[in-house]
Amino acid sequence: MAVIMYDLAGIEDRRFSPYCWRTRFALAHKGVDHVAEPVRFTDIDAIDSGKRRTLPTIKTESGLTSDSWEIAVALERDYPDAPTLFGGEGGVQSSQFIQNWANAALLGQIVTLVLLDIWKHLDEENQVYFRESREKRFGATLEAIQQGREERVSVLRQNLMPVRMTLRNKPWLGGESPSFNDYILAGGFQWARTVSDFQLLEDDDSIHDWLKRLDGLYNGLAASGARYW
Amino acid sequence: MAVIMYDLAGIEDRRFSPYCWRTRFALAHKGVDHVAEPVRFTDIDAIDSGKRRTLPTIKTESGLTSDSWEIAVALERDYPDAPTLFGGEGGVQSSQFIQNWANAALLGQIVTLVLLDIWKHLDEENQVYFRESREKRFGATLEAIQQGREERVSVLRQNLMPVRMTLRNKPWLGGESPSFNDYILAGGFQWARTVSDFQLLEDDDSIHDWLKRLDGLYNGLAASGARYW
Repeated sequence: MAVIMYDLAGIEDRRFSPYCWRTRFALAHKGVDHVAEPVRFTDIDAIDSGKRRTLPTIKTESGLTSDSWEIAVALERDYPDAPTLFGGEGGVQSSQFIQNWANAALLGQIVTLVLLDIWKHLDEENQVYFRESREKRFGATLEAIQQGREERVSVLRQNLMPVRMTLRNKPWLGGESPSFNDYILAGGFQWARTVSDFQLLEDDDSIHDWLKRLDGLYNGLAASGARYW
Repeated sequence: MAVIMYDLAGIEDRRFSPYCWRTRFALAHKGVDHVAEPVRFTDIDAIDSGKRRTLPTIKTESGLTSDSWEIAVALERDYPDAPTLFGGEGGVQSSQFIQNWANAALLGQIVTLVLLDIWKHLDEENQVYFRESREKRFGATLEAIQQGREERVSVLRQNLMPVRMTLRNKPWLGGESPSFNDYILAGGFQWARTVSDFQLLEDDDSIHDWLKRLDGLYNGLAASGARYW
């Protein structure tokens, strides 16, 4: 039985969730036979009778697992002979920090740069849900949140400095081959590239070289989802 | 023969270098018999005929090794039976990213908050060297660099968010016990605590709990060097 991966989707089959992307890359990395099934925000409740409110969730023979971190740890445990995602226990501990860094310093910025663009790629029912929930969370309209992004993007670019420093000496955050750290980072870029033509990076940013390598992995998985840049 | 660790020092035996602290913690973690020998900025050249310009440098039976990262990797290799600093190859790769994050997002901020306070803890000859070299590097006087720190410290506090997130679930960045990641972070706090009464953290910051645990390690090594808070 192929694993089912419930993957957040908008119109035109846009798969924009940064957390779902982490899981898609992790499944590909482990070589797990799976189907990435599109799920709209308003259909998430149907997966498990309202008990799971976020994606990704995967369905395997042993049941449902949610949360991209929990899924990665479960894959590492269940597929010990496939290429490692973490490189041992020290890697797991350190990756958890890198995940928290990415969530705070990258995703926390990117959301304010593309939130309205996500809304533009939802159907009418989901646009209502998305606008209401996000405007309540941020205390501002989607339009106001995204406004001024040409100036504000400099914070994200500054926050990416440790990525550039690390990639000076090796092709991947994982070293000679990609690790879950690379997929943590990749999720953020996929989020934007799927729904927005807004350039997160300057043209001469060295991270573009890493993105090109990413696009070359797993039969073009990253590139297939990215509709812009 | 005990290992000699050349440790940057000011007057009153202040050991303030964040990189030297990483190495002192790493040596203690590995249980390496060593002497932390105080060295002033203007005496660094004497260690190796001017060929090594920065500290830490350690001297072992096999010769000199410089750079806190290189030293940590060498200790992990040379003391495989002592507690691990990285927890395997994935840990090494991930820690390198965490080091780069700390250097950019923490040390890059802390330096602007305590630079004048470091100068105050140097002798006259080293004050001249320090002021000249740092003012040239920053393009401003030490006084101007440190000015306005009460407002600017908010950037550092924001940048520490992934540390707080990680410590919600475990006592150390390394998990149940400290790893080199903890010492990377510790170096930044020791830098400030050695020479400055300026509070990097708000009173209710959860990172204080981690600092208390740090002060309890290795016979109070961290606390012994920290003259303030």
